[in-house]
Amino acid sequence: MINVTQTFLPPIEEYNAILKRAWEKKWLTNRGELVLELEDKIKNKYHISNILATTNGTLPLQIAIKCLELKGEIITTPFSYIATTSSIIWEGCHPVFVDIDEETFNIDPLKIERAITPKTSAILATHVFGNPCKIDAIAKIAKKHNLKVIYDAAHSFGVSYNNQSIFEYGDVSTCSFHATKIFHTGEGGALFTKDKELYNKLYYHHNFGHKGALDFHGLGINAKISELQAAMGLAVFPYLEAIFERRESLYKRYQKELKGSVQFQKIESNCDYNYSYIPVVFKTEKQLQDVVNLLNNNHIYPRQYFNPSLNTIAYINGDVMPVSESISSRVLCLPLYFDLAEAQVLLISNLIRNCISNE
Amino acid sequence: MINVTQTFLPPIEEYNAILKRAWEKKWLTNRGELVLELEDKIKNKYHISNILATTNGTLPLQIAIKCLELKGEIITTPFSYIATTSSIIWEGCHPVFVDIDEETFNIDPLKIERAITPKTSAILATHVFGNPCKIDAIAKIAKKHNLKVIYDAAHSFGVSYNNQSIFEYGDVSTCSFHATKIFHTGEGGALFTKDKELYNKLYYHHNFGHKGALDFHGLGINAKISELQAAMGLAVFPYLEAIFERRESLYKRYQKELKGSVQFQKIESNCDYNYSYIPVVFKTEKQLQDVVNLLNNNHIYPRQYFNPSLNTIAYINGDVMPVSESISSRVLCLPLYFDLAEAQVLLISNLIRNCISNE
Repeated sequence: MINVTQTFLPPIEEYNAILKRAWEKKWLTNRGELVLELEDKIKNKYHISNILATTNGTLPLQIAIKCLELKGEIITTPFSYIATTSSIIWEGCHPVFVDIDEETFNIDPLKIERAITPKTSAILATHVFGNPCKIDAIAKIAKKHNLKVIYDAAHSFGVSYNNQSIFEYGDVSTCSFHATKIFHTGEGGALFTKDKELYNKLYYHHNFGHKGALDFHGLGINAKISELQAAMGLAVFPYLEAIFERRESLYKRYQKELKGSVQFQKIESNCDYNYSYIPVVFKTEKQLQDVVNLLNNNHIYPRQYFNPSLNTIAYINGDVMPVSESISSRVLCLPLYFDLAEAQVLLISNLIRNCISNE
Repeated sequence: MINVTQTFLPPIEEYNAILKRAWEKKWLTNRGELVLELEDKIKNKYHISNILATTNGTLPLQIAIKCLELKGEIITTPFSYIATTSSIIWEGCHPVFVDIDEETFNIDPLKIERAITPKTSAILATHVFGNPCKIDAIAKIAKKHNLKVIYDAAHSFGVSYNNQSIFEYGDVSTCSFHATKIFHTGEGGALFTKDKELYNKLYYHHNFGHKGALDFHGLGINAKISELQAAMGLAVFPYLEAIFERRESLYKRYQKELKGSVQFQKIESNCDYNYSYIPVVFKTEKQLQDVVNLLNNNHIYPRQYFNPSLNTIAYINGDVMPVSESISSRVLCLPLYFDLAEAQVLLISNLIRNCISNE
């Protein structure tokens, strides 16, 4: 069976050796030494101003919305994982969708301004599949209209844009360290901001507002990551470069094999990409369905990331988004992970090519 | 150094042996087999209708509030950990405090009715230090006024009331499996409800509303617990009876040594208690401070659970709660954990007695 992804597992002995330090300290959570070390390692490797590791990748979005005191409408993309929109709604704001660019799959900055109303408080955009948004254009619009910018960078670990970590952009950036991600802590995530004062506020929000044992800064919940999770991050960390390399090689192999048969995502220039996903878009929904059926029959399980287009979900009920809905109905993320063999990429590509040419 | 608590750590080899199963399955989250096994074990041991393990003990409160569609005012206790109130505020409701009983430290049901207004939607009460609330009286009031009841049972793992697990009471009960708790998963928690339909709703809310890969039931966020955390729960589980026994013995030793010197919490009858904390109340705030200073000088660090009284926190700004504020200013939780030696209990008790008698 070949799934769309497979969790990268470091040797269990290496995980255990790190975890032993938590046992020795008898300390399993509340920002133990493993969490601090993990944050430091990520910060130093990517020259990041401030990082706060969290227990998953959704709480950072919720905390960012609360912390920036966003109200009313938040402009967002319909082509993302559900968490991007559900965080907005959970936190009492209204998602206003802006359609995506059909080549990059990211929110189309040319369409943002017409969606702005007096109620708009922020733009929450996703760097889809790790591909950076039109960051400069979005920054310009935000400045002009006095809006906050949050980037859902769930897929963007390791990506840089204009020679800076992608996490350095926007008022706040968030990441997911979920088991299916390039870098992971089982479940996990992080908050990033260049603004030290804002960082402090995010920090308090993620730990009940605690200012020592008896005093409180203000509102907070629990988004703390445990040592069990941090130990996993520290065990995966030494393999990062090997993981990036391997994925790049498989990604490029897919591109070579499927060139002309499918549409690939256009990756932004000025970007050091992380090859986190290999989304391919078929000509028609029927073609996609035929391919999915054929692959499934061969025990290969790609995933329709992101389908449905978020605006079409019943409880969300957003405006029609023609581009996003069209891409959503025709996009497929193919298997891509460290342990995937090149022969498997060839097999999958062959099956897809044959399926398409038979039509 | 003796802290108020110390995390119970099973032998690391036992944790590793369990975790190996996650490695073999290459599955670290999204309700893996370790999570399911842990839920089953808890459910069977305590004859619980429905359990949903979560990544911490605060998200269950948030999810319960959202899931029960609570609005307006929620009646709650000022004598609890901050999470009880901050969850209410985070979820857009207003906490209305009702003072506590000076003997049980739990919300006083006699004072609940006068706090009910047309805006009241629920009662969120804490079984403080694991001591059951006046469950029958609260149920009666809730029924009369058509209010939902949520029990914050963060401290109540293993407690039964009227021969039923404490988690079976209220519309929803929540628990914390934080590292400092009797039973723990590093960070973790759980939701409980007897109502299967409500359970399904809580379930969807905790996993983004997913109904399969492409469909959604409704709103949701991420409260999933990982296999790393579940493995810890499974490793602690076999030690539960030994943990309860040890704590009971130390608890009773404190009671014997300090009888007449301090006020103890009155534990409800009809209750099988878990000895999760040993709170003692001093005659005056000064006496408490003198004791804290003396203990600290001896490298002993009890904690002022729960101080401050939640109504007095600046951003919360609730009505005056004389009993809670009085108890808060005079209460101290003494060290109590599995590895605490009886000699240490004697030492701590002697220090306290001497300090008090010198005044």
